[in-house]
Amino acid sequence: MADKGRLIAVDWGTSRLRAMLLSAAGRPIATAESADGIGALESGTHEAAFERLVSDWPTVPAIMAGMVGSRQGWREAPYAACPATPKSIAASIIRFKSGAGRPLAIVPGIMVRSDDRDGDVIRGEETQIVGLLADEPKFDGIVVLPGTHSKWATVSEGAITDFQTFLTGEMFGLLSRQSFLRHSVNEGERELSTLPGFALGLRRTVIDGLPFLAAIFSVRARQLLDSVEAEDNLAYLSGLVIGGEIAAARDTGRLWQGRQLRIVGTRSLARAYGRAFELAGYEAEALDGSDLVVAGLLHLARTADLFPAETAR
Amino acid sequence: MADKGRLIAVDWGTSRLRAMLLSAAGRPIATAESADGIGALESGTHEAAFERLVSDWPTVPAIMAGMVGSRQGWREAPYAACPATPKSIAASIIRFKSGAGRPLAIVPGIMVRSDDRDGDVIRGEETQIVGLLADEPKFDGIVVLPGTHSKWATVSEGAITDFQTFLTGEMFGLLSRQSFLRHSVNEGERELSTLPGFALGLRRTVIDGLPFLAAIFSVRARQLLDSVEAEDNLAYLSGLVIGGEIAAARDTGRLWQGRQLRIVGTRSLARAYGRAFELAGYEAEALDGSDLVVAGLLHLARTADLFPAETAR
Repeated sequence: MADKGRLIAVDWGTSRLRAMLLSAAGRPIATAESADGIGALESGTHEAAFERLVSDWPTVPAIMAGMVGSRQGWREAPYAACPATPKSIAASIIRFKSGAGRPLAIVPGIMVRSDDRDGDVIRGEETQIVGLLADEPKFDGIVVLPGTHSKWATVSEGAITDFQTFLTGEMFGLLSRQSFLRHSVNEGERELSTLPGFALGLRRTVIDGLPFLAAIFSVRARQLLDSVEAEDNLAYLSGLVIGGEIAAARDTGRLWQGRQLRIVGTRSLARAYGRAFELAGYEAEALDGSDLVVAGLLHLARTADLFPAETAR
Repeated sequence: MADKGRLIAVDWGTSRLRAMLLSAAGRPIATAESADGIGALESGTHEAAFERLVSDWPTVPAIMAGMVGSRQGWREAPYAACPATPKSIAASIIRFKSGAGRPLAIVPGIMVRSDDRDGDVIRGEETQIVGLLADEPKFDGIVVLPGTHSKWATVSEGAITDFQTFLTGEMFGLLSRQSFLRHSVNEGERELSTLPGFALGLRRTVIDGLPFLAAIFSVRARQLLDSVEAEDNLAYLSGLVIGGEIAAARDTGRLWQGRQLRIVGTRSLARAYGRAFELAGYEAEALDGSDLVVAGLLHLARTADLFPAETAR
């Protein structure tokens, strides 16, 4: 066996636990995944959940990012401050050994604090941005990471200088499934961003500039007055919410302002946001989020010298 | 008995059924209330729910407003168009007799439609505005009716010319009780609008002009980074949401613009909005919502000639 596993890269979020066994050169050898997300685990059960998942793999060091480092996680890794570089993030990694003696490292989240605005925090996405910087050290622009809690981060001179969280995915879920608007929308087979309603909703918030709170009741009015089809109306709501995020990011004045954009996320979210930016008249290149997590974990492991000496690049 | 009941005025919304027996002069003689809101009733059960509530009262005509006239109500009263006057609303009242022979009237909701924006609908609040106009026929300004779905209506020359719905109350409920922010807030004994967090949240959205979607994650950040007390953080969220509504209404450009403001709602909502407008530097007079419903129903009953002839004013 020429290439044994030397490091386990772990993306441990609220709802999923994903692990990848990497070779000394950083190539993936095996992957494993479970539903043991941080949100589902009691205090004191993290080691068992992790060892269960990787029991077939060699006992090599593991580096982890995401909610595993939160107060509710395995062990708290306090937030590093912005501006944050891959080097400053690596320096804030916490290390310990599991009960079974496995060397473990947890990547910290990052925070932004300032006197003239509210603070903000990221936990997990910083590692994807590190992955992007490992590939493109000179990148200067905005990284958009769509999701339950979308993050927009400003990257300049190799550092994350500022960022902002938007509750976009959660807002869409609340409005489409738990608010009274659920009677006006319906999920179908088609991809929402390809439906006419998506473009219309997006136009309302991004181009017409309608404030989000003033726009959402129209989902109900479209059903009552125009008998709009429920699936297209769900696409319209999706367009309003994603458009609301884009307009809000633009209007904060701190983000974007003509700089280049990268979308980092799952394939389906990247497609929806790609279409949204295109409809709004902006160019944005999409990158795969899971690839960047691994690239980021690998880069941080090397920077923090977590590989055994003989495997260092 | 000098003054027998001659008309029953009914405010029948999604969650409550309220009835008031009025004298020929329009004075209240008795009131009754139940939890038989439209949202809780099956089709075909409305008459029984109503007769159960008023069984001790004489069999006089009843005039009703609210969701009772919706597609899910007792009988649908189609929306009247804007601009809408007390007279045009009265002309669109639908009349029928109950199985027991009682004359019944249902007030229509109103709608606004236009080629250059989405439509909107009101059902119930139009009657409160009619009540306001019955008292102040020359009122020219904006009527703000806070609630689960807040309404802002433009009133001019005795007509409702335009309006806009905001999901404020529902948004606050979703975020404080069903989103992940519920872990960062807590309901206490104190009135939210009196806490420092309320003023701060309001300032963020109304004065600093932070877009609502960009502001809400700060509820979580304040807990994580500043260890803000959970009750004050709930007040902060309330300030963000109410401030978001006020800023959105201002920014639509169609509403307000320096015109005089009236707040119409329950005592506690009127206090919160009164404080919000005061903090934002605007003057707004508050009126009691339930008084105005009765005044509006009485005015519409007289305009539509629903009183027996001998009781007409």
